[in-house]
Amino acid sequence: MAVKSDSPVIRLGLIGLGGATNQMLPTLRSHPDVRIVAAADTHPDARDGFTAACGAPAYAEVEALCRDPRVNTVYVATPHQWHKEHALIAAACGKHIIVEKPMALSLEDCDAMMQAAHRHGVHLLIGHTHSFDAPVRRMREIIRSGELGPLAMINTWSYSNFLMRPRRPEELDTSLGGGIIYNQVPHQVDMVRLLGGGMVHSVRSMTWALEPGRPTEGSHLTFLQFEDGAAASLVFSGYDYFDSDEFHFWVGESGEQKAPDAHGKARAGLRRFADAREEGAFKARAAMAVGLGGAPQPASWHHPHCGVTIVSCAGGDMRPSADGVLVYDRQGRRELQVPRGPAFPDKASVLDEMAQAIRTARAPLHDGAWGMATMEVCAAVLQSARERREIVLRHQVPVRD
Amino acid sequence: MAVKSDSPVIRLGLIGLGGATNQMLPTLRSHPDVRIVAAADTHPDARDGFTAACGAPAYAEVEALCRDPRVNTVYVATPHQWHKEHALIAAACGKHIIVEKPMALSLEDCDAMMQAAHRHGVHLLIGHTHSFDAPVRRMREIIRSGELGPLAMINTWSYSNFLMRPRRPEELDTSLGGGIIYNQVPHQVDMVRLLGGGMVHSVRSMTWALEPGRPTEGSHLTFLQFEDGAAASLVFSGYDYFDSDEFHFWVGESGEQKAPDAHGKARAGLRRFADAREEGAFKARAAMAVGLGGAPQPASWHHPHCGVTIVSCAGGDMRPSADGVLVYDRQGRRELQVPRGPAFPDKASVLDEMAQAIRTARAPLHDGAWGMATMEVCAAVLQSARERREIVLRHQVPVRD
Ligand SMILES: NC(=O)c1ccc[n+]([C@@H]2O[C@H](COP(=O)([O-])OP(=O)(O)OC[C@H]3O[C@@H](n4cnc5c(N)ncnc54)[C@H](O)[C@@H]3O)[C@@H](O)[C@H]2O)c1
Ligand SMILES: NC(=O)c1ccc[n+]([C@@H]2O[C@H](COP(=O)([O-])OP(=O)(O)OC[C@H]3O[C@@H](n4cnc5c(N)ncnc54)[C@H](O)[C@@H]3O)[C@@H](O)[C@H]2O)c1
Repeated sequence: MAVKSDSPVIRLGLIGLGGATNQMLPTLRSHPDVRIVAAADTHPDARDGFTAACGAPAYAEVEALCRDPRVNTVYVATPHQWHKEHALIAAACGKHIIVEKPMALSLEDCDAMMQAAHRHGVHLLIGHTHSFDAPVRRMREIIRSGELGPLAMINTWSYSNFLMRPRRPEELDTSLGGGIIYNQVPHQVDMVRLLGGGMVHSVRSMTWALEPGRPTEGSHLTFLQFEDGAAASLVFSGYDYFDSDEFHFWVGESGEQKAPDAHGKARAGLRRFADAREEGAFKARAAMAVGLGGAPQPASWHHPHCGVTIVSCAGGDMRPSADGVLVYDRQGRRELQVPRGPAFPDKASVLDEMAQAIRTARAPLHDGAWGMATMEVCAAVLQSARERREIVLRHQVPVRD
Repeated sequence: MAVKSDSPVIRLGLIGLGGATNQMLPTLRSHPDVRIVAAADTHPDARDGFTAACGAPAYAEVEALCRDPRVNTVYVATPHQWHKEHALIAAACGKHIIVEKPMALSLEDCDAMMQAAHRHGVHLLIGHTHSFDAPVRRMREIIRSGELGPLAMINTWSYSNFLMRPRRPEELDTSLGGGIIYNQVPHQVDMVRLLGGGMVHSVRSMTWALEPGRPTEGSHLTFLQFEDGAAASLVFSGYDYFDSDEFHFWVGESGEQKAPDAHGKARAGLRRFADAREEGAFKARAAMAVGLGGAPQPASWHHPHCGVTIVSCAGGDMRPSADGVLVYDRQGRRELQVPRGPAFPDKASVLDEMAQAIRTARAPLHDGAWGMATMEVCAAVLQSARERREIVLRHQVPVRD
C-alpha cells in the first residue's frame, strides 16, 4: 500500500455502502490520493459496519454527509434512482462527485446533474465503467498516436450469466433501471465511445427479453456508426449459456481467474428460490453479508474487462489480453504488458482521473457531458429496438484526451 | 470411395477448370451420385490437364459442352462475370446448373438466370457457400425443431488474410466483382440467412478499403434485421492481422489444421512482387500449377467453416466446433458430433442437394430465388455503407426446409 499524504487530494465521503462500494474499497484504501473521511447510508447495519471497518463516522442522511467540511468529494453508489438526487445535494454543498454508472435513468436527469455541477463549480465524473480499464486506455493511446493508422471498426462480445444471478425485483424491471440496458450496456458503450473518439452518429439495435419470469432486456445487438466513418458492434447476452470468457483466457470481468465449466450453474442456482420475493431477500442479505471488508484479495489476478473486444485499424488489430494488449500487425502478434494498480479489482484510474481534475482544475474526461452522451446511446438502443429503425443522436461529445 | 452407379443422378460437365473446380474435385470423385462426364475451359493447358487427369473430353466452347447429350448437369466455376452467360447457355440446353458463388454481379443478372432456369425447366442451385457446411445445417435443424426455443441473434466474426493473398487486378476492383463483398460476404450472408430462416428485413453496414494499392472492400460490419425480430451481426476483415481461427480451435476455412503463428505472413509474402502485374501473373501461374489433381487430402481434417459464429436462442447458444456443434444450454456445455463427407474439403452437401432435386423434381433449397436474395443483401451492404443508412429489402425468400 502506498504511503498516504496527510492532506490527500480526495477526501472522500461514500454515499451508499453496498456492493459497488465494497468492490471499490480495496482501490480506495490503497490509492495514495484518497482518504475515506465519512459515509452515508439509510441502513443502520451498513453504517455500523462502515464505522467498525473504517473508523470514520457514518450518517443516516446524505445531506449531513455533504455538509461535513472534511469531505471534498463524494462517491455516489446508491441504487440508480438516487443518483440524480444525491449528485444534486453534493453539488449544492460544493463537493466534487463521482457517480456510479448508470449516470441516471433519463437524459433530463443527466442534464440536471451536469448543470448543477457546472453551477456550483464542482467536478462531476461518471465511473467506474470498463472504459477506465488500463488495457482500454492503452488501446485508446495507440489509436490516438496514429501508430496503427485510422480506426475502422470495434467489435465487442460479452456473453455471461448476468441476468441469471440472484436479483431483486427492481433489477428485473427496465422502467426501474433493471436489465442489461442500464447495468451492462453502459460499460460497453463507454468503452467503445472512448476507443472510437466519442462522436456516435447513429444507433441500430435489437434487444431481447428471453426468460419468462425475468421480464427485462437480457441481450442486445447494437450497430454504432461514428461520425468519422468508424463503426462498432456491441453484443451482450446474460442468459448463462455461452461464456465469452472462453475467448478471454478464462479471466472474468473483475480480472479473476475463472472455472471453464460453469455454464448453466447460475441458472440452476435460482431453483432454490420459491419465488421472486425469496430471491430478492437472498440478494439483499448476500450484499449485506459481504460486510465492508472489501472484496477478498486473491493471490494473483488480471486486468478487468467487459468481454472480448477486437479493435481494427488500417495498420493492425488489437485486443485486451489478460495482462495487457495483444497487437496483431505487419510484424505479427505481440503482447504489450500494461501495469495494474495494486488492488483487486483494479479501479484506480477512476480516482486518478478525479485527483487529476482537482489538481489541474480541468474537467475529467468522463465528465457529465460524457456520461450523458453514453446514456443517450443506451436510450437509443431501447428506442431503436422498439421502433426497428436507426436513431440519430444529438448529445454526443468527443473524447478530450 | 463409394461405389458409383452406372447411371448416376448427376452426369456432370465442368465449366471452368481453375481453383474452385480443383477444390471441388475430391468431393466430385467420391460422391456416389456424381460422374464427371466432360469439361469446358478457354485455356488449352487446363483442357489438357483435365483430360489427362479425368480421362474425359474437354471443350474450348461452353456451348459445345452444353450440347453434349451425356451431360445432364453443369458446374459453373468460371470467374464471376461469366456466371450469368454460362448459366443461360446451360439452361437453354436443358441442363441443371450448379453456379459457384457469387450468383452474379447484379440483381438483374440473378433474375435473368432464375427466369431462364424456370423457362427451361431445369434446377438452378447456387453453391458452394458455407451455409452448406454440415454443422450449420445441423444448427438450422435444431432451430427449426424448436428444442432451443425461438432464435434471437446470430453473431459471426471472420478475421483472415483474405485480401493480402496474391490477387489478380480484377480481384481488387469492386466493379469487376473483387473484394470481400462478392467473395466472402456471400458466405456469411448465406449462412446467416439459412440459420435465421431467410427473411431479412433490412441491412445497416459499414465497409472499409484500408490498404493502399488494394482499392476494394477488405472489411465490413453489418447489422441484419430479420422480419420475425431476430437479428444478426456479420464482421469480416481480410487484412492479415487478428485471425478469428484463434477462437475456432486453429482450424481453417476448409477444415485444415492451421499454424497459430502466421499473422502478417501473407502480407509479407506480397513484398516479393514488384507490381500488380507481377502479382497477378504469379496468381494465374499458381492456379494453373495446382493442376487438376484436386486438393491434396491431408491425414486428418475437420469441418469447413467461415469464422466464429454464436447462435443465441431463448433456450441456449450454439456454435460450430471443429467436428460438430457446441451447445451451451441449461444442462451446461456439450458437443454434438456431426458426420463429415469422405473428401477434404467437404462440399458433399451441394451435390446431395442437386441429386435430391433431380430425384424428386423439387427445387433445391439454394435455388435461384434464394441466391438472388443473398446477393440482394450483399448489394445492400455496399449501398448502406455508401449512403450511411438502413436499407430495406424486397427480394427475400424463406428457407424451404
Ligand atoms: N461500476 C461497477 O462495476 C458497479 C458495480 C456494482 C454496482 N454499480 C452501481 O452502483 C450502484 C449501487 O449498486 P450496488 O450493487 O452497490 O447496490 P446495493 O443495493 O448493494 O447497495 C446500495 C446501498 O445504498 C444504500 N441506499 C439505498 N438508498 C439510499 C438512500 N436513499 N440514501 C442512502 N443510502 C441508500 C443501501 O442501503 C445500500 O447499502 C448502482 O447504480 C450500480 O449500477 C456499479
Ligand atoms: N465456394 C467456394 O468456396 C469457392 C472457392 C473458389 C472459387 N469460387 C468461385 O468460383 C469461381 C471461379 O473462381 P476460381 O478461383 O476457380 O477462378 P480461376 O481463375 O482459378 O479459374 C477460372 C477458370 O475458368 C476459365 N475460364 C475463364 N473464362 C472462361 C470462359 N469464358 N469460358 C470457359 N472457361 C473460362 C479459366 O481459364 C480458368 O481455368 C468464382 O466465381 C469464385 O467466386 C468459389
